[in-house]
Order: sequence, then structure tokens, then C-alpha cells
Amino acid sequence: MSGRSEALPRPVVAPDVALAGRLFEELRRRTSASRGVSRASYGLGEQIAHDIIRREAERLGLDMAADPAANLHVVLPGRLEGPEIVIGSHIDSVPMGGNFDGAAGVLLGLSVLAGFVGAGVAPPCPVRLMVIRAEESAWFGASYIGSRAAFGKLSAAELDEVRRMGDGVTLGAAVAAAGGDPQALAAGTAVLDPASIRLFLEPHIEQGPVLLERGVPAGIVTGIRGSFRYRQARCLGAYAHSGATPRGDRQDAVLAVARLAVEVDEVWARREAEGEDLTVTVGQIATDPDEASFSKIAGDVRFSLDVRSAEPATLAAVREEIDAIVARIETRDRVRFELGRLTASEPARMSPAVVSALGAAARAAGVAHIEMPCGAGHDAAVFAREGVPTGMVFIRNAHGSHNPDEHMELSDFAEAARLVTALLQDPPPPR
Amino acid sequence: MSGRSEALPRPVVAPDVALAGRLFEELRRRTSASRGVSRASYGLGEQIAHDIIRREAERLGLDMAADPAANLHVVLPGRLEGPEIVIGSHIDSVPMGGNFDGAAGVLLGLSVLAGFVGAGVAPPCPVRLMVIRAEESAWFGASYIGSRAAFGKLSAAELDEVRRMGDGVTLGAAVAAAGGDPQALAAGTAVLDPASIRLFLEPHIEQGPVLLERGVPAGIVTGIRGSFRYRQARCLGAYAHSGATPRGDRQDAVLAVARLAVEVDEVWARREAEGEDLTVTVGQIATDPDEASFSKIAGDVRFSLDVRSAEPATLAAVREEIDAIVARIETRDRVRFELGRLTASEPARMSPAVVSALGAAARAAGVAHIEMPCGAGHDAAVFAREGVPTGMVFIRNAHGSHNPDEHMELSDFAEAARLVTALLQDPPPPR
Repeated sequence: MSGRSEALPRPVVAPDVALAGRLFEELRRRTSASRGVSRASYGLGEQIAHDIIRREAERLGLDMAADPAANLHVVLPGRLEGPEIVIGSHIDSVPMGGNFDGAAGVLLGLSVLAGFVGAGVAPPCPVRLMVIRAEESAWFGASYIGSRAAFGKLSAAELDEVRRMGDGVTLGAAVAAAGGDPQALAAGTAVLDPASIRLFLEPHIEQGPVLLERGVPAGIVTGIRGSFRYRQARCLGAYAHSGATPRGDRQDAVLAVARLAVEVDEVWARREAEGEDLTVTVGQIATDPDEASFSKIAGDVRFSLDVRSAEPATLAAVREEIDAIVARIETRDRVRFELGRLTASEPARMSPAVVSALGAAARAAGVAHIEMPCGAGHDAAVFAREGVPTGMVFIRNAHGSHNPDEHMELSDFAEAARLVTALLQDPPPPR
Repeated sequence: MSGRSEALPRPVVAPDVALAGRLFEELRRRTSASRGVSRASYGLGEQIAHDIIRREAERLGLDMAADPAANLHVVLPGRLEGPEIVIGSHIDSVPMGGNFDGAAGVLLGLSVLAGFVGAGVAPPCPVRLMVIRAEESAWFGASYIGSRAAFGKLSAAELDEVRRMGDGVTLGAAVAAAGGDPQALAAGTAVLDPASIRLFLEPHIEQGPVLLERGVPAGIVTGIRGSFRYRQARCLGAYAHSGATPRGDRQDAVLAVARLAVEVDEVWARREAEGEDLTVTVGQIATDPDEASFSKIAGDVRFSLDVRSAEPATLAAVREEIDAIVARIETRDRVRFELGRLTASEPARMSPAVVSALGAAARAAGVAHIEMPCGAGHDAAVFAREGVPTGMVFIRNAHGSHNPDEHMELSDFAEAARLVTALLQDPPPPR
């Protein structure tokens, strides 16, 4: 078998990048907000996007179906039956977000499918494009709603209790309004069986600057960082006169949080130098606008702390180090930290077989690429945790994501689409 | 002469502390706000307080007069004519402030004068109690209005342009409404001649915890710290994804300001260890509430920086050190600081002769005391800068000042009043 497939020239299949270009423009035009685009989870913008994909899949003559979570499944038959490859991404956006986060993955999948249809070539196994609902936590305060639902992992409580920002509609009502079946979801109905998926692939724009700096269009993700966060941490000291309170009498909450920020950054520097994967960020900090003054030592500071790593052991160790730093600063500066509720997510390893196959496909297609970790959460993490061999392909992108300035060149998208096309033509063997 | 005065027993003069106790209560009752007291500069609360002092001075049979700034002058004649001692303090408060900041100095002066009147004893030289208007910058955004006006140092522009917080009344209109003469002030009319003041004394609650900790009721101030402040400083970095942006690509404004806060604190620690007088405070810090997020590196942080010292040379040196630290952090973290407008005040030295006479008076009256610097600005700084031999007496006080929790024990007030009484009975010789 392997001898024969090597001997035969691979049929030329080129992704339909022009189609993707037109659809990016249509998406932008039809879902523009006051700034950027807004495609609310289970809302108007997301529905417009789903309707566009549905129309194009129909035009391509592909079978499709919606599941109880109103995820859209578009299927390209393979030369053989059997475990299928799923290419999936979401198509909602954060409020006033960019046009590419999420949508690039869906349109990449569609352009690849359109390439096979246009060439009249079937891939070795069936390929399913899954347009996943409600990945962004900005709307319902919950992540990965569509992908979790597809595995029967959405709770009845979430459906009843979680409400959409702005209009306050419950998740269950929003699912029903989009044509889904919240009762089926509440009953735990699964439409995906991890064992029947050959591999899951999520293409996505890179949300950092690494590919830009390295000068390559595509990244092959080795793992999705897990995280722990203190979103609403607080440091309590004592307000006092800035000029009248000696050094030894101060309980300065600003200085205490500043020390914490600097010391956790030193933890990061040291662990990174030792080869560990880590990011540490204090993204928000604020004294009380009513109480604080330039001439008062601050008695109350609120802040956030976000720690991410691809390694569970690193996350656990850093959490312990932070506890020790906090205790030391509390003693030294006579303040009290209330770190508040910790939210956490486990790292998700990408399948080594998929990573390796993506590398081989990139080399076969002549697509310059690097391997890299992924710092943000994605539906791919849900698939990986379900035991599906999972991979992600990053597309070079400027100005980060979740903002109107996201900037992906269509030529880079084309490189990533060629990489994925090559993978579909020569996928790793089934498990 | 000196032999004779040493031989004669000093007449027993006891300050009328009970009077002060009653007037503190009346002041609190009549100027209470939703929280604490509010005695707006040239406003209702301040006027109520002036009217109370006027009533009591009249009851004591003392001469009084208001000047063009509506400062109230109450005069106790001395055994001899000649250069007079001025005891002065303000009686306005910050919004929702405490009952003692300012008022304690006025009521101390009044209780001391009442003591002389009650004993039928005249002090060696005339004593003037000056109830000074509008010391707090909270209302007009300008400090020491009444004392500067008394020396003819209020500008016509200030009178026309500066407006009161809340009601927007101009300073000139507010002065006129309180019975003052803004035209005379604009013309630079002075009612005080520095050369004709034997010494100026401002009693005040301590605004820090030093006397409490040292367990003494009274402090003799050696100097008023000067300051420089960046009230609206800013650090500009770049917003980026907390999980997707590597260490070397970050322009983290929170981390940069945290480093600055920690490093200027180290400057303070080092200079204090070397015996310099200094305080350094970052009292306000805030990321942009609309843009910042727990999962974003912050691109914009606003903060304040307040530096105080009794030594001009220390202020100048620290300012240079801060510039160097800022430049180093800008390079290291690829951020840009905009420190904004610098406001500054010169330190004011208390007169060594007055400090020494206060020490002698405290010993004579058996009042436990320490010498200490004063960290906040006061009208005394205006008198000192005009060349008047100036002193300040601090009264032990808990919970700082400018808040409803100011807590001065009347027994400590009594100790300070006995100290001042002793000084008036045996003042330092005229210059």
C-alpha cells in the first residue's frame, strides 16, 4: 500500500482562497459593529456567519446538518468510509472584536473542502467541517459551549442559569432561538464520539507576535497552555498621609502589589531560563478612585493575576511560589492579600502524531513553519481532553486578537490552507 | 531684668480646655456632613466656625477684626507693646473630613487666650489669634489662600479664575460673600508685616502615627517637608494577549510602573539609612477600566508619585534618581513614561530659636514631647517663607487626618495648650 501511494503522483488540490477572501469581506460587511465586528454567541452576528457557511456548503453540493447545540456540520466524503477528520473552529467574536479570530479557521476549512470539490478529488477519509457555536466567553461568561455540547458535556444548570451579556437571555433560550434543542443538551446527548474521530484540527490566527517575528506564515501548535487566574484579587493595607507616615508605619497596598508583580515576573524569568513554559501577567490594577489620592498611602488595591503554562507541574509550582511570595510581602509590608476565587484550566497537549503529520504536510507543501505553544484556550482543548488526537495550525497575524486591528494577510492564510490540504491528502494513520 | 523675672514665681495661667471641649462638640454638631464634617473654604461650614470663634472672643472681651481675606484676628494685649506673637490655624476642612485638622489649632489658641483672660494675667507681649481662611486645597485647588492673602501674595488671576469644587464659585466672589475685599487683595494689600511678628506658632494635630507610637502627647516640629509630585503620570506600553505574547515581546505598563514603585522605594530605604529625610509614595495607580483585562498585558497605566523631604538637596537628588530609573525601565521594558506636570513646594525650616523656646517651655510645663519633621504643608510654611520665626506644635492623634476617624484626646490637647501657655509666658527674645 505504502509503496503504491508513494509511486502515484498526488492529485493537485488547491484550496479556494479567493472564496475565503470574498467571505471574509462579506462577514466583515454584515457583522460590523461601531468598532470592529460583533458576532454574539447564539446571536445575530454568529447566525449571519452560519447562514453564509450554510449557503456556500450548499453551493458546493456538500451534505450538512445542525446538531442540538446548533453547531453546523458540513461533510466531504472520503475515498473510504471510516474515522473522519474534523476541521473545526468557532465563528462568533468578542464584542467589537476582529474579523479573523475564529472565522479564519472556519473559512480555512471551507476553502480546503472547496479545493477538493473543485478538483473533483476525494480525500482518503471523510472530512467534516464543524462550525462551532459560542466559543468566546465574552458573551455568556462560559467558554467552549458548542464543542462541550457536541460531546454531551453541557450541564442543565448552565443552560438555565448562564445569561448573555447585554440582553440577559439564558443560554438555553439562546440555543433554542438558534434552532437548537436545549432539552437534548440538558439530557447530555452527544453527537461526537471521540473514538470515531481520526483527528481534530483547529486552524486559528496566532494571537501573539511570534510568527511575525520569526518571519514564517504558519505555526504548528505543540500544546495549549493551561492557566490559573485570580481575576479579582485585592490587597488591603491602611490609608495614611503620604508626608506624615514614616516608612516603618506604612501598610502600603500599592507597594505590596508592585512587589508581587515584580517578584512573580522574576519567577517567570528564572523558570523560563530553566526551560519551562510560562507566562505571568498582572493585567489589571487599580486603587479605589474615591478613596485614593496622590497624597495618601493607598489602603486598598484591586488587581488580576493570570498564569499560564503548557505544563501542569509548572502551574502547580508557580502557584506555590506565589503563595510564598504573598506570605512574605504580607509580613514585610503589614498588608493582607485576598487573592479571591481561583479559576483554572488544565493544559491540553496536542497529539504528537498530529504534530508530526502536520510537519510532514508542511514540508510536502513547502510551507515555512515553526512549532510553538498556544497561550490561549480554544475548542481544540475540549477535543484533546476528550482523547481525540488534536492539532492546531496558527496563521501569522499582527496586532493580536479580540480587537478590530487583527491583521491576517490572505497570502498567509493560503499557506496554512495548503498545509491543511496536504495533511488531508496524506493523513496520519487511524489510531 | 533677667534676675528679677527668674526670682518672681510665674503667675498660674491654665488654658481653658473645657471651653475647647465644648466648642469642638458645637463645631462637630453644626458642620457635620453625610460622613465626618465639611467646612468648605469660604463656605457655610467655615463661616459657622468663624462665627463661633467671634462669639467666644466677644464673650472674653477681646478685640477683633477681619482682614480683606476675611481672616479673623483676635488680639490679647501684652504687658508691653511691641512685636506680637501670632498663633494661627485654619478652620476649614476637606469634604467629609475630621473635626480636628485645623480647628484644633484655632481652639488651642482660643483656650490659651481664655486662660490668660480667666487668670487676669497679661502675657509679656501682645498675642494675636489668627483664624486663617481657606487652607485646604480640596475646595479651590489652591493652598494657603488666607495666609498668602494676609501677606498680600494672592494674585488677581487666582481671585478671578480659581473656582470652588462643586458650586464653581470664583475665589474672588467667595471672598466677597464672606465679607472680604477681593479688590484690596487683587491690589496686593498686606495686613501682616513679617518684621512686626515676634513669632508665628501653628498648633496642629499630627497627621501620622509617630507621637502615638512614641507615647508622647506633643511634638515640636523642626521643619515642614517640601515636595514634588507627578499627580498625573502615565506609562504607555502595548496591549497584548497575556497567554500568547512571549516575555521578550511584552511592553507591560503594569510591570513597568511596579518596577518604578519598588525602585523608588529602594531609593528611599537607602537614603533614609544614610540619615536623609524622605518619603516616597505611589498613592494612585490604575489600568484603563475599559481596555484592561485579566487576560491582556496592559498598555496604559496612570499613577501618581509624591516625594517629600525637609532638605531641598534631597528632593533634587531624588528627582534625578527617578529620571534615571524611568529611563532604565523605558529601555528595559520598551515602554514610555509621561510623568506629566510636576508640582513642587520648597521645604520650610522652623526657626531654631522657636524650636528651642518650645522645648524650654515644654520642660518648664512638664509636657512630654519629641522633636520631629512635619510631612504635610501648612500655613506655617507661608509664614516661615516670609521670614517670620515660625514654629509648630503637634498634638498626638490617631487615624491620620482628612478623614472622619481623626481622633485627638482632649487630654493631649490640654498638654499642648499648657506648652503653648508656657511659651507665651516666657517667649524667646524679639529678633
